[in-house]
Amino acid sequence: MKNFPIAKSRRLRSTPYSEKIEAHGVSSYTIYNHMLLPAYFESVEADYHHLKEYVQVWDVAAERQVEISGKDSAELVQLMTCRDLSKSKVGKCYYAPLIDDDANLVNDPIINKLAEDKWWLSIADSDVILFAKGLAAGNKFDVKISEPDVNILAVQGPLSDKLMSKVFGEKISNLKFFNFDYYNFKGISFFVARSGWSKQGGFEIYAEGSEAGKKLYDFLFEAGKEFNVKPGCPNLIERIEGGLFSYGNDFDNNDNPLETNFDKYVNLDNDIKFLGKEKLIKIRQDGIKRKLMGVKIELDKINMYSEKVLKDDNNNIVGFLRSATYSPTFKKVIGIAMINIPFNKPAQKFKIEIDGKIYEGTICDLPFI
Amino acid sequence: MKNFPIAKSRRLRSTPYSEKIEAHGVSSYTIYNHMLLPAYFESVEADYHHLKEYVQVWDVAAERQVEISGKDSAELVQLMTCRDLSKSKVGKCYYAPLIDDDANLVNDPIINKLAEDKWWLSIADSDVILFAKGLAAGNKFDVKISEPDVNILAVQGPLSDKLMSKVFGEKISNLKFFNFDYYNFKGISFFVARSGWSKQGGFEIYAEGSEAGKKLYDFLFEAGKEFNVKPGCPNLIERIEGGLFSYGNDFDNNDNPLETNFDKYVNLDNDIKFLGKEKLIKIRQDGIKRKLMGVKIELDKINMYSEKVLKDDNNNIVGFLRSATYSPTFKKVIGIAMINIPFNKPAQKFKIEIDGKIYEGTICDLPFI
Repeated sequence: MKNFPIAKSRRLRSTPYSEKIEAHGVSSYTIYNHMLLPAYFESVEADYHHLKEYVQVWDVAAERQVEISGKDSAELVQLMTCRDLSKSKVGKCYYAPLIDDDANLVNDPIINKLAEDKWWLSIADSDVILFAKGLAAGNKFDVKISEPDVNILAVQGPLSDKLMSKVFGEKISNLKFFNFDYYNFKGISFFVARSGWSKQGGFEIYAEGSEAGKKLYDFLFEAGKEFNVKPGCPNLIERIEGGLFSYGNDFDNNDNPLETNFDKYVNLDNDIKFLGKEKLIKIRQDGIKRKLMGVKIELDKINMYSEKVLKDDNNNIVGFLRSATYSPTFKKVIGIAMINIPFNKPAQKFKIEIDGKIYEGTICDLPFI
Repeated sequence: MKNFPIAKSRRLRSTPYSEKIEAHGVSSYTIYNHMLLPAYFESVEADYHHLKEYVQVWDVAAERQVEISGKDSAELVQLMTCRDLSKSKVGKCYYAPLIDDDANLVNDPIINKLAEDKWWLSIADSDVILFAKGLAAGNKFDVKISEPDVNILAVQGPLSDKLMSKVFGEKISNLKFFNFDYYNFKGISFFVARSGWSKQGGFEIYAEGSEAGKKLYDFLFEAGKEFNVKPGCPNLIERIEGGLFSYGNDFDNNDNPLETNFDKYVNLDNDIKFLGKEKLIKIRQDGIKRKLMGVKIELDKINMYSEKVLKDDNNNIVGFLRSATYSPTFKKVIGIAMINIPFNKPAQKFKIEIDGKIYEGTICDLPFI
């Protein structure tokens, strides 16, 4: 497989931490929200093993914030998501599929409620700010929409509580999952959430401005020596094993949230108002035609540059593989696929052609672990 | 300068031509509209010299189309741009800054008018589809908005007329600049515009579906042998010399079209309705505070990963350099910078610090050539 160097430019925005992670040995980048996001340091597999045992600091500034504030902000935020936010509370984080008028997915951010009239949507890879601006202008909402200078450092891994307690004090260990609060480090107040794009436990530090985050970055490595801290990033193996989805990989603007296992975030049974609601009611009535599921394939490696078709013995299309990786845990390739109904049964077999050869696989439920 | 391989995934979409351009020796990629866009083949400078003398075929599928059709489509398209489209004609292409309610730039597409109620916005790097969907939903417009399976091949360079005439017939040479029409190749009808992101002349072929485009790609190389055809891509040197702007590099959602030399596309003097109009009227009244201009710097190379500050002898901030390259024509670095008023005078001197050293530069008008 040939490597293609990324052509850097201002358009592919650097983060406040880019120089530091390059000095720390980042090996490869992806682009996420028009910004550099590290893809691995030592190797995807070496990073994976370290993440599951110790603690890592991640430059995930590419998880940009869309700040929505003002009198009509709650109405606008609710209009964008099928998740019921009517009982949402300040200080909490809400994973929320955003959908359009056709009930197709636009993004799957974590919505942080900072105040009754102030929200941060911590977004996956699409320009939610333009969607929000369009909706606000069209509805003549009284809101302010911006991308603040917030650059997340994630601290992930089983030793993350120890490192964070050492830096921010013991009380941070009382922070509950998907809650956020403000903690002091050297006189600066940091928004910290117990969250992150791994299943190994951890925190996301929403550093405001670039200088504060850079100082903190250095200190996290200094304080983390005793916990064998390393630089890291969202890990392909770990996130697929844990069933954490990636917008643009596992689903996109051609899929609806009932197809992508978001049922518990789809609220159709009260009178809250959001885009695509009537369409979703109809989809629920008619039943979905396909469903996102796991797959296991008897292979020891795979490259995923685009969808791969899955077929049964009679050449019927079973579905399309969208993300996949070799898993050291299962000792085979595992992946996430959109499966056509009625093939959506665990243990359903399929065949997949890779580089001219046919391999066998099996459908399974998500998550893998 | 270290190279960072791009981590490919389905999210960074391949184009129908990716396998072909990789076989043809593409060396580096950027990401544009969540899609692979080649950055150079032999080298930026070798590609540049070839482009100015012969003809190149470019995979610019990453210039995605936002298709807007239906009864209210003209109203929606006009709402998004400050350019007056009231006298627009089917068969013509309109370069049009899109702006938001704050009069800040959202994108700078070419708008192709396919019918009175059907438009293709051939976009730069931002999710215009989400902006359009938000506006349509908010205004309850009767429109259909989609991203069609259209994958542009550009044929650029002084010999492009010869190659295109050989493939599509002599009458294609009658096609006027920024007009489009349909031309046959082996029984398939192709939308072809005389346009493209170079100043060397050429065409953009909006191939619909992936198979038709792939056949055409191969044939263009076969037919182009006698014209010394090579694969190419938008060229950093050529586009800066020619003063062709890049959304995300030269300007973004923090800049307004009066700052970016789009005056002739800003219509404030009749009653057409578009977002940000009142704000633009106020900006025009108050006068702009900064302006996009050219710069020349006594240097033989430069890397641009983010803005670089320009200062005068008294340490006043003259402006910010946003794109730059060594120019073989001028034998120095040239670039595009946002210059604070009153420093916006050609021949204004400035200093720039690069890797700890100070260099001298001069402001100039755009385009360079």
